[in-house]
Amino acid sequence: MTLAIDPAAHLARLHQTTPLIHNITNLVAMNSMANVLLAIGASPAMVHAREEAAEFAALADALSVNIGTLSPHWVDAMVDAAGAARAAGKPWVLDPVAVGATRYRRESAARLLALSPDAIRGNASEIIALAEQQAGGRGVDSTATAESALGAAIALARHIGGTVAVTGEVDLVTDGRRVARIHGGHFLMPRVTTLGCALSGVVAAFLAGGDDRFEATVAALACYAVAGELAGENAGGPGSFMPAFLDALHALEAGTLTARLRLEVSDAP
Amino acid sequence: MTLAIDPAAHLARLHQTTPLIHNITNLVAMNSMANVLLAIGASPAMVHAREEAAEFAALADALSVNIGTLSPHWVDAMVDAAGAARAAGKPWVLDPVAVGATRYRRESAARLLALSPDAIRGNASEIIALAEQQAGGRGVDSTATAESALGAAIALARHIGGTVAVTGEVDLVTDGRRVARIHGGHFLMPRVTTLGCALSGVVAAFLAGGDDRFEATVAALACYAVAGELAGENAGGPGSFMPAFLDALHALEAGTLTARLRLEVSDAP
Amino acid sequence: MTLAIDPAAHLARLHQTTPLIHNITNLVAMNSMANVLLAIGASPAMVHAREEAAEFAALADALSVNIGTLSPHWVDAMVDAAGAARAAGKPWVLDPVAVGATRYRRESAARLLALSPDAIRGNASEIIALAEQQAGGRGVDSTATAESALGAAIALARHIGGTVAVTGEVDLVTDGRRVARIHGGHFLMPRVTTLGCALSGVVAAFLAGGDDRFEATVAALACYAVAGELAGENAGGPGSFMPAFLDALHALEAGTLTARLRLEVSDAP
Repeated sequence: MTLAIDPAAHLARLHQTTPLIHNITNLVAMNSMANVLLAIGASPAMVHAREEAAEFAALADALSVNIGTLSPHWVDAMVDAAGAARAAGKPWVLDPVAVGATRYRRESAARLLALSPDAIRGNASEIIALAEQQAGGRGVDSTATAESALGAAIALARHIGGTVAVTGEVDLVTDGRRVARIHGGHFLMPRVTTLGCALSGVVAAFLAGGDDRFEATVAALACYAVAGELAGENAGGPGSFMPAFLDALHALEAGTLTARLRLEVSDAP
Repeated sequence: MTLAIDPAAHLARLHQTTPLIHNITNLVAMNSMANVLLAIGASPAMVHAREEAAEFAALADALSVNIGTLSPHWVDAMVDAAGAARAAGKPWVLDPVAVGATRYRRESAARLLALSPDAIRGNASEIIALAEQQAGGRGVDSTATAESALGAAIALARHIGGTVAVTGEVDLVTDGRRVARIHGGHFLMPRVTTLGCALSGVVAAFLAGGDDRFEATVAALACYAVAGELAGENAGGPGSFMPAFLDALHALEAGTLTARLRLEVSDAP
Repeated sequence: MTLAIDPAAHLARLHQTTPLIHNITNLVAMNSMANVLLAIGASPAMVHAREEAAEFAALADALSVNIGTLSPHWVDAMVDAAGAARAAGKPWVLDPVAVGATRYRRESAARLLALSPDAIRGNASEIIALAEQQAGGRGVDSTATAESALGAAIALARHIGGTVAVTGEVDLVTDGRRVARIHGGHFLMPRVTTLGCALSGVVAAFLAGGDDRFEATVAALACYAVAGELAGENAGGPGSFMPAFLDALHALEAGTLTARLRLEVSDAP
């Protein structure tokens, strides 16, 4: 079965609306996430103090929360902000970086998961660990394929009533009912830090104002996959990949996106 | 009326003295601000703990403070450092990022404003919000022209007895008595995160040892405008702009600066 | 006297093992350190909360600690993590950024030094200040040659029973018994922020699983020197240097490393 999904229409809406995206992300990802969001046409803001996080979340068009570098004040602010986003009807995205690595990560992720994110984005190890709420994976990098996390992703999507994206050589997106597989990207992408983290912000940008969270999440990953493929053609290694990727995201047009995209959609098993 | 301002002389002094610039800036800007300051010939240091911020501010040649990502300990350290800089006779610069967005930002900015910065650098929304001490603007990006903030900038400059720089397509600098308009830069600059934040550090670097704060601030913005214009000629998008901009700042010479600069100076209305 | 050191063998082992490197580093260096570690073939993770730092240090293959941007919670977590690394038999590296600049830095460094790092990496000013435990140097940049810190480095290496690396135009490594001098690199490297900080992470990556800490430290600096030299051939300034450097680190092979390396090893005086 193939459902009609038009990522280019979602990209066009993002370009027209320039959504304000509130990010509480890790200290490694801050700069690249801001640049990725600017390149694709959103307006990023990083606001993490408990004194203002909830106020700002209600003001922004969407929120992304990433547990990559935690500390108690930040976790409290993440919980405040996610609660405020929900109360204001704004979508929010959870990125469970290395959730299986320590007890503190599992507990922090559980607090956030209880606030029903509209979308979750992680690698296979993270999605499996989050679904099982048990230890697994050591660091932030995953060697498992996204496909190996399909069952976990579907279960998690049904649990939150939202979408789950698993990134890898082939990316998966599911809302528990449908499954999309997105081909593309480039082998250098896992060698560039925080590209995955920044993608979670991009998912938030596409969710802002989107009616269909599954389609919006697929559109975000589609743009990343095509821009990554294009950047790979101009990169001599992981260092030159990042500038090329930002240039490609910035230049990405509906025609190129549609022509390049390799997307399959099916019913969830 | 045109006053004689020679930005190239200020750049030459910076190159000769390699001023040590103490920055308490936001978490997104840290890396790019350090690279911008190194590229132009200053020596950057980021020191934010209350246990050492005042001691370091007295040691450095100038201080820049940016409220982009706040938390209580940081705000206290900013206040300590600004007070220490003043006590030691060192200039300091305030960058009021997104000051209109939340109550916490307005209150933090008010505490800092009371310590009379030698210069303030922001976009039009921020300068207007700071001058009016009231809510305005949502995020960190501004759509207003710098010119729309002229009245606010002049009022603010007179209030602090220092200079105010408003960046936009055409930049403004005023000390409440004179107004400089600086043309140049590139349309990609607002699509690269923290270029504005880093400029506030550059203003601090030019204020270090400068006799005339208005001229020093104009010189800082002049270098940015010309380097931005040069970088734009070699950039294929916002990703390749940043390396090109750092290369251009590093290579910037008196002759190029003077030949390229488009600067108008007039009396304040 | 020339001892047989084969950095290429150390690089090959790193490529085969992809060690997980736990870094508690400064806020400026986070992103570039992660990219440098990914480029050379390690798996970086930044974990600084006291709630998880010790647990993670025991899990990782090596730890690097950098005092560039301090605050009390972070210093406590650094001490916890270094203690846990020692208890688990994992090597750890100390980077004493600007240790001479403030009392807080000297005290924090003293707490860490008491936990016997396996290696220390700094510039000449930092190594001298750490060895003398007294004030010296203002900022993070050093104008002294590495050679001027030879005596301090040897004393410090004997004190910790580990290796000390002093970076400069010519780099020094000593374990108190032997001294290696490594030529190479590029004059632009001090104009790119946090390249030195990232090198301390690379030293940790080479120490992971290495039997001989002196050889492993030399191997880390050898890769940096050769990659820096190669990057310099393709860089138009400090902005384009960083992407070129990451590309060069990623592409670095045994043959190139061995052919390009200029290394002298002698007995310590």
